[in-house]
Amino acid sequence: MEATKTSIVPGSGVCTLINVFTVAPERQAELVKLLEEATEEVMRHLPGFISANMHRGLEGTRVTNYAQWASREHFEAMLRDPKAQTHMRAAAAMVEKFEPHLYEVVSTHQRSAS
Amino acid sequence: MEATKTSIVPGSGVCTLINVFTVAPERQAELVKLLEEATEEVMRHLPGFISANMHRGLEGTRVTNYAQWASREHFEAMLRDPKAQTHMRAAAAMVEKFEPHLYEVVSTHQRSAS
Repeated sequence: MEATKTSIVPGSGVCTLINVFTVAPERQAELVKLLEEATEEVMRHLPGFISANMHRGLEGTRVTNYAQWASREHFEAMLRDPKAQTHMRAAAAMVEKFEPHLYEVVSTHQRSAS
Repeated sequence: MEATKTSIVPGSGVCTLINVFTVAPERQAELVKLLEEATEEVMRHLPGFISANMHRGLEGTRVTNYAQWASREHFEAMLRDPKAQTHMRAAAAMVEKFEPHLYEVVSTHQRSAS
């Protein structure tokens, strides 16, 4: 089930969501858990979901989800899903702010071979 | 040279930088180009650089770099590098704001097999 890892490729047509949550440090772990549960229970079963990756901010006040959807339309359909809305409301109630933005990958760069 | 793609793996010890730039729409393309040049000319030759991935915001006002460093210490050494500083100052002068934060990957989630 974990064979398909996130693949970051320019021009793939994938719609990337990068959602930066700002949260009180004492609730950071709780927010990660909520986002993981929402993803496992709801998001990953919705049409067009490809992957999500949860990131814990080292300074304690941020959690960022790097997620991929097959298209913007699939992402927007998720926003209208009642079960997804329940989870999103719970996350919103826990955080200071969340900043979800959609992107396309334009280039990738690797370390120099030298 | 492009064989090593970004691999998002919990517990790998990789230090992830997610830097969200907010920019005027008419300068978005210019900012992407500057970040790409900085990465190709300087960043990817520095010790501990693993990868960078440039993302163009669909609404026109954001550019986000998803980058990986071997450790926080490598990232902080980059911040002190004079050539890197030149590029970072140029980017800072072009944008409304930039919000660089460091993360560790805590979990990855893929689409349901069903």
